Amino acid sequence: MRKKIEIYDTTLRDGTQGEGVNMSLADKLDIAQALDAMGIDFIEGGWPGSNPKDIEFFERSKDLDLKTSKITAFGSTHRAGVKPEDDFFLTKLIEANADIITIFGKTWDLHVEQALRISPDTNLDMIHGSVAHLLKTTGKPVFYDAEHFFDGFKSDPGYALATILAAVDGGASRVILCDTNGGVMPHELAHAIREVRKEIPGLKLGIHVHNDGGVGVANTLRAIEEGVIQVHGTINGIGERCGNVDLTSVLPNLELKMGYQCVPEGNLKELTKLSRRVWEYLGMTGPLGQPFVGPAAFAHKGGIHVSAVQRNPSTYEHIEPELVGNSRKILISELAGGSNLRAKLSNRYPELEESSAAKNILEEIQDREHAGYSFENADGSFDLVVRRHIGKFNKLFETLYYRIYSPSNEEHSDTDGLIEASVKVLVDGVEILHAAEGHGPVDALNKALRKALIASFPVVNELHLTDYGVKVINSTEETAAKVRVYIEHSFQGEIFGTVGVNVDVIKASWNALVEAYHYALLQDQDFKADLTEAGS
Amino acid sequence: MRKKIEIYDTTLRDGTQGEGVNMSLADKLDIAQALDAMGIDFIEGGWPGSNPKDIEFFERSKDLDLKTSKITAFGSTHRAGVKPEDDFFLTKLIEANADIITIFGKTWDLHVEQALRISPDTNLDMIHGSVAHLLKTTGKPVFYDAEHFFDGFKSDPGYALATILAAVDGGASRVILCDTNGGVMPHELAHAIREVRKEIPGLKLGIHVHNDGGVGVANTLRAIEEGVIQVHGTINGIGERCGNVDLTSVLPNLELKMGYQCVPEGNLKELTKLSRRVWEYLGMTGPLGQPFVGPAAFAHKGGIHVSAVQRNPSTYEHIEPELVGNSRKILISELAGGSNLRAKLSNRYPELEESSAAKNILEEIQDREHAGYSFENADGSFDLVVRRHIGKFNKLFETLYYRIYSPSNEEHSDTDGLIEASVKVLVDGVEILHAAEGHGPVDALNKALRKALIASFPVVNELHLTDYGVKVINSTEETAAKVRVYIEHSFQGEIFGTVGVNVDVIKASWNALVEAYHYALLQDQDFKADLTEAGS
Repeated sequence: MRKKIEIYDTTLRDGTQGEGVNMSLADKLDIAQALDAMGIDFIEGGWPGSNPKDIEFFERSKDLDLKTSKITAFGSTHRAGVKPEDDFFLTKLIEANADIITIFGKTWDLHVEQALRISPDTNLDMIHGSVAHLLKTTGKPVFYDAEHFFDGFKSDPGYALATILAAVDGGASRVILCDTNGGVMPHELAHAIREVRKEIPGLKLGIHVHNDGGVGVANTLRAIEEGVIQVHGTINGIGERCGNVDLTSVLPNLELKMGYQCVPEGNLKELTKLSRRVWEYLGMTGPLGQPFVGPAAFAHKGGIHVSAVQRNPSTYEHIEPELVGNSRKILISELAGGSNLRAKLSNRYPELEESSAAKNILEEIQDREHAGYSFENADGSFDLVVRRHIGKFNKLFETLYYRIYSPSNEEHSDTDGLIEASVKVLVDGVEILHAAEGHGPVDALNKALRKALIASFPVVNELHLTDYGVKVINSTEETAAKVRVYIEHSFQGEIFGTVGVNVDVIKASWNALVEAYHYALLQDQDFKADLTEAGS
Repeated sequence: MRKKIEIYDTTLRDGTQGEGVNMSLADKLDIAQALDAMGIDFIEGGWPGSNPKDIEFFERSKDLDLKTSKITAFGSTHRAGVKPEDDFFLTKLIEANADIITIFGKTWDLHVEQALRISPDTNLDMIHGSVAHLLKTTGKPVFYDAEHFFDGFKSDPGYALATILAAVDGGASRVILCDTNGGVMPHELAHAIREVRKEIPGLKLGIHVHNDGGVGVANTLRAIEEGVIQVHGTINGIGERCGNVDLTSVLPNLELKMGYQCVPEGNLKELTKLSRRVWEYLGMTGPLGQPFVGPAAFAHKGGIHVSAVQRNPSTYEHIEPELVGNSRKILISELAGGSNLRAKLSNRYPELEESSAAKNILEEIQDREHAGYSFENADGSFDLVVRRHIGKFNKLFETLYYRIYSPSNEEHSDTDGLIEASVKVLVDGVEILHAAEGHGPVDALNKALRKALIASFPVVNELHLTDYGVKVINSTEETAAKVRVYIEHSFQGEIFGTVGVNVDVIKASWNALVEAYHYALLQDQDFKADLTEAGS
């Protein structure tokens, strides 16, 4: 039996205080269900009374039919000069009728004097009175967040402990030590927790840290080592300033490295999916290298790493990616070796194992990356390079030229202004010229190219442009800067990228576009050939 | 006197193993100069022999005239079955002629057996022989990276120590303990370092960790507490998988929290600038909440936080943002935004204090940012918004239209293909039409616009385009994707940015270009008006 650590998620409350974070009510309800499916113990839904959305969340969350998670409502101690029963926010907290109430109070003498501008004793009364009132009125558990605990403890340890005792006397069933400013160092944190446990034996403690010093995860793990039993954090570490501690790092460390249990058996492998779902709700892209759950967390680029990982994954992976629902990824770049190539291509082009083509392919990749290309995410362009080297590039069409006609552009007519492109291709010795209008030159070129090819290759109808990106490439030479265009398409269920490089952004786009059509048509040709073979 | 910690940057080597990281030779040389200006002790430039770019870097870096930094070349021990003097990579390392050579060797019995497939003793010989050969041949210091040290130590502590002793006997002047897989926990790391220091007293140790467990920063700080004197890491934590430890977190923690010295006095306040510059070279955007240097690291959103921080910053900030060259940010809520705006502009436009324009400006900024604009670095465009609202926008010219003529484009004529643009403007009621050729449409438009305006405004000759960037804006709506173009110009000693947004990248570029000309001409007009006033 592994020791259970309670997980308290505040993505929906503290998380929304992060820059750029904005959730609709529907988002919040959906995320709550996803957290419940993961088996998170507590979900802090919001601060009732601070805005209408949060009050509505507590109403609507009653219909969610959660299996594991308890919903908690967040607020502060009552205001000075008001009785607990007359306090607006305490009343809203009670009305929210959540499973648990969490309130925060001041620990730090500096804050008591400068933010609240009240006497230290009045603050103690407010903490005690608020907890006791909520407990008496609702009969539900009350958790107490000791805001700025570590800064307060450094400034006046006796007073910091007194605030905690006030909450305990009031009936708080958990006391959460908060590093609100996110600046405490692990050894200071450990020392403070040890003192609290010495002074108040048996107290059930939680930890709530921010990541301003970049040590939020380590601080949380250290607190657990010191006997804390509850962790507060957010999915993907969103939150005020540098964010709250990222639960997607804390959970696997506690479970896989330190032997604790955080979520029900078998749920940890849903972690990557949960992380990506939350990023999607936020309309944000997480860091590529986000520990455990990031798209690059198990991506191997260096040639040496790839060859070793093929033989034994533990040589360059600290855990098996599947344990958190992530997967291994082999990247192709100028740093790649033959092993990268073989790892990636042995199924598709078994002939590579035998031939000397691998070396030539790698050389071309290195040369072209030196010239500004990047093949890492451009599987389509990469495939064409390989095909050319192993004699599997069958040129299905040739592009003779393209032309762009931009109409007169008057100022402030920003939205309409369609652009016309014409494209001439050669298919089976026949020249085909077509033109199309589009939003911007790339859209116009794409449409014209499709029109030019569709009679010969109806399958181009299934090719859809899904993403487009441009990057300027700095150069040592004193010439015009080149740009790299990356285009992503979906085709028959596959997402693939192509890349073009040129001083002219349109030409670079055109090259990437043409490669995408070639790649898709060759894929389709191979697929049909396989079918014929299977049928014969 | 604070104790000095040596800082060893591997942005240019290990950093480039990160997914999506792709640096040109020019980028690498520029970044090396920026690291030198920060006062970083060692800059690992690359792995000579692994690709042509790295060899060129070592040649070109000789001309850099670095003030502080020493350049190091990275490689591995010689291969099995080859003498050190015959080894290809060792020879390339010597030829690179860097100030220092760093080589890595295997510590972990698993790796020796499964990756190298040699006997443990042969591995020890290879380590000893490689270090000794490099030292004897070059006479320059050799650093030894003990790859997978912590995993190796866990697996077989005796053998792990033997590999280090082999390097020390060979003459290594630093031994760097590497957490190559990035999975070690701080307490395990501390234990291993203590054992090394007990077994080999006086050894000068370095620490090189990856962030796969999310505790890279804490591990590095812990190593320093245990007596390590050199830190390896990258700017912004780029690197293989989850990245190397982020020096932009390590440096301020060591200097501001733990009392060590990492860079020369006064340099730490350049850290934010360095971080952002490196992100720019990478064509990437760092995490908003990157500790210390991120745009949101000192951003206050919650209402309570904002009012408290205005009374006493330490209430919600763990350090003063200026110490690392960052700044406080009050996120636009109506009131905080208004005071922010006035603070930013009170010198330039004192009339803003009195007028109601501030509110309207904020609304326009909010609306346009919602539509995809970003004014954070676009001071030129921001200035034009403000001018329009306070009646100081004097339209010196009007643009009637632009046209782009792209010539026929045959495949594989990638490099030349000049593009022609024509531009018609209206100045003082007179229409002026001009045309120019350029590398790509933006270059052509810029040249044509300059030709059209230069007779009326000779000062446009002093306006120089210095940077150009394009970003695709993701949208929830099902329309064509918009792009945001950011253009940077220098004008009479000032660097400023302008921004344009459109579905058409050329149109977005055009709008940003026109704003740049307007901004520069209005600046010039104001300056001349001031001179006249002063003279009258």
